[in-house]
Amino acid sequence: MEHRTAEATVTVTRDGRPLAGQEVTVAQRDHDFLFGCIGFEFIDLANGAGTELDRRVAREWFELFNFATLPFYWGRFEPERGRPDTARLLATARWFAERGCPVKGHPLAWHTVTADWLRDLPTDEIAQVQRDRITREVTDFAGVIDAWDVINEVVIMPIFDRDDNGITRLCRDLGRIPMVRMAFDAARAANPHATLLLNDFDMSAAYECLIEGVLEAGVRIDALGLQSHMHQGYWGEEKTLAILDRFARYGLPIHFTETTIVSGHLMPPEIVDLNDYQIPDWPTTPEGEQRQADEIVRHYRTLLSHPSVQAITYWGISDSGWLGAPGGFLRVDGSRKPSYEALHGLIKGEWWLPPTALVADAQGRVRFRGFLGSYEVSAAGRTTTVRLDTPGELALDAAL
Amino acid sequence: MEHRTAEATVTVTRDGRPLAGQEVTVAQRDHDFLFGCIGFEFIDLANGAGTELDRRVAREWFELFNFATLPFYWGRFEPERGRPDTARLLATARWFAERGCPVKGHPLAWHTVTADWLRDLPTDEIAQVQRDRITREVTDFAGVIDAWDVINEVVIMPIFDRDDNGITRLCRDLGRIPMVRMAFDAARAANPHATLLLNDFDMSAAYECLIEGVLEAGVRIDALGLQSHMHQGYWGEEKTLAILDRFARYGLPIHFTETTIVSGHLMPPEIVDLNDYQIPDWPTTPEGEQRQADEIVRHYRTLLSHPSVQAITYWGISDSGWLGAPGGFLRVDGSRKPSYEALHGLIKGEWWLPPTALVADAQGRVRFRGFLGSYEVSAAGRTTTVRLDTPGELALDAAL
Repeated sequence: MEHRTAEATVTVTRDGRPLAGQEVTVAQRDHDFLFGCIGFEFIDLANGAGTELDRRVAREWFELFNFATLPFYWGRFEPERGRPDTARLLATARWFAERGCPVKGHPLAWHTVTADWLRDLPTDEIAQVQRDRITREVTDFAGVIDAWDVINEVVIMPIFDRDDNGITRLCRDLGRIPMVRMAFDAARAANPHATLLLNDFDMSAAYECLIEGVLEAGVRIDALGLQSHMHQGYWGEEKTLAILDRFARYGLPIHFTETTIVSGHLMPPEIVDLNDYQIPDWPTTPEGEQRQADEIVRHYRTLLSHPSVQAITYWGISDSGWLGAPGGFLRVDGSRKPSYEALHGLIKGEWWLPPTALVADAQGRVRFRGFLGSYEVSAAGRTTTVRLDTPGELALDAAL
Repeated sequence: MEHRTAEATVTVTRDGRPLAGQEVTVAQRDHDFLFGCIGFEFIDLANGAGTELDRRVAREWFELFNFATLPFYWGRFEPERGRPDTARLLATARWFAERGCPVKGHPLAWHTVTADWLRDLPTDEIAQVQRDRITREVTDFAGVIDAWDVINEVVIMPIFDRDDNGITRLCRDLGRIPMVRMAFDAARAANPHATLLLNDFDMSAAYECLIEGVLEAGVRIDALGLQSHMHQGYWGEEKTLAILDRFARYGLPIHFTETTIVSGHLMPPEIVDLNDYQIPDWPTTPEGEQRQADEIVRHYRTLLSHPSVQAITYWGISDSGWLGAPGGFLRVDGSRKPSYEALHGLIKGEWWLPPTALVADAQGRVRFRGFLGSYEVSAAGRTTTVRLDTPGELALDAAL
């Protein structure tokens, strides 16, 4: 984890004089690494209509995560043309932002869960409303949401045959690269400061070919989104590292945008489109929970071991989200599974510096090693903050 | 087959006067459609060292095919740097050309069967010798070979991990699209009149993404090569048409560059790289031969039904070629399988106009429908040739 940690030498002064020989307490406040999760289930709570369970789950959420993904599926965000769900989502995004949590919107263009009313439009009008939609959302949320999964699953977008939809038709008409360019150009113009992602579940050479084509065409991508829904079983370290190796070649930051590991039985391997697996009940089990906890630790360790990974977004803290799967870290009653404790043991344990008492040397210096992020430095009743922002040796000043 | 046939009205004149009411014989001479096959096994024969079996097989070959593919695998063509096998291949290509058969070279760049000595070179020198190699072959064979599979299997080229080789290293270093551009630029410069193909076995969205990236980057591709080695079973009409539908989107001619259907047991479906299936003996069987004949007819009918397909190259007329598979139309003793007769029944039967006696009308006109290609028109001891070169109604003159 050399690339994730710094060895800080902090010179602590009070009123300009080094606090030689005095006790100094250092305590980590946050991680630079983005430990993310979807926040779809807090829309009601953020809009003043939450239940007691929502509040409990939210407390657990913020104890673990520092990065939220909110839903912008067109078909749900604007089921009736011209009546977007902007106000509720903006309130939700602000609710996260006020709690120190950057927010990403997902997605601005996708062929699934897209607006039904696109189907009735001619293709060139779909292009126009898709552009307008991107411009509207990215503009409306700028400053609150400055990261977007701009376009989702382009590898299959023009050949998706599960249902007739306007976006597949548009992408087939334009070609994948012009489609990506159109979406990114609209998002970039609306918010030049946003982090814009290309996102896909396809970990094969197809996504590599798409990325290479898009980059060769001069479209600027800020980060590559790799999905990792593992309802059919944990990938394992070897496969995960091989994928990282292939997608790190482009020199772009990598976000694991959609991670799921279930704590119940695995989805059968023959299911190709995960959406096809519809069962009435998918229970979490004690053995499954132990396995999930173990695999979550292995997965997060593997991802953090690779320097290209900047974010991991888990696909739901609670069970019975997408597909009714027991993929959460909390059971439906809000109780913690072993996976919650295990991940907490990394994010707020092994990878975290709790309040630690040190004694400054004759020059007022204290030394500590920690994960990149912010730290409180306190002595003699005063407190300030320093930030470990680059790996390796760092010399910092803390003026109290 | 409307798009493959013309309804010709030929006005037959002798010394400028219409041959009103006279008998005119029309006979097809060749097909515009490229019914191809590899000609790898005729190199000895073309260089004066063939056996009696070679001669028999060659007669069968020319009775069926009008388009040959010759091998330019770098590792075999130039196993020792600076000593290419040019003379033998040039003699072979001329041997085909003299028999009216256009020739395609396969391939100019590929990570498999590439020259071992590339491994010892630094990557930028590999780029240089790869360019030089393409320039040399395309120049040396221009006028005899004017069609090339320029680059093969780029989808997996940079991630091919079966053996260490210089081309994978180069492609990984350059990226797929610059690699394709480099190869096409060198080939195009060496022979501006050549038909240049991109060729792949990957029929998934990966190849689509690659093609879209390459076209978007402005590289001119003359035809798309789709492999169809069906050692694991015939694809069937539905899959084949779906593939054609997807790859026809680019408006480019499609060549089925490598087709195999076996007349023995099928390769198990779990084999991913067909080269992994190494068995001592893979016999042709009576039931397998019947199935193969049936599937060959279905496959060729399906491909010709699609207007984008311009060529089908079968991967070896005789058994025991690649992988020792019983994929030929002839058994190892040179005898015809049912598949030979079945395909012959299409190419020189159902899709062919045998010598046909017609009677010219009062204006000296005869009418016939036939597949695009050349036809001999004979009357009163004289003969000329007309060509049906576009589908639909055609008015032609035959001056005897």
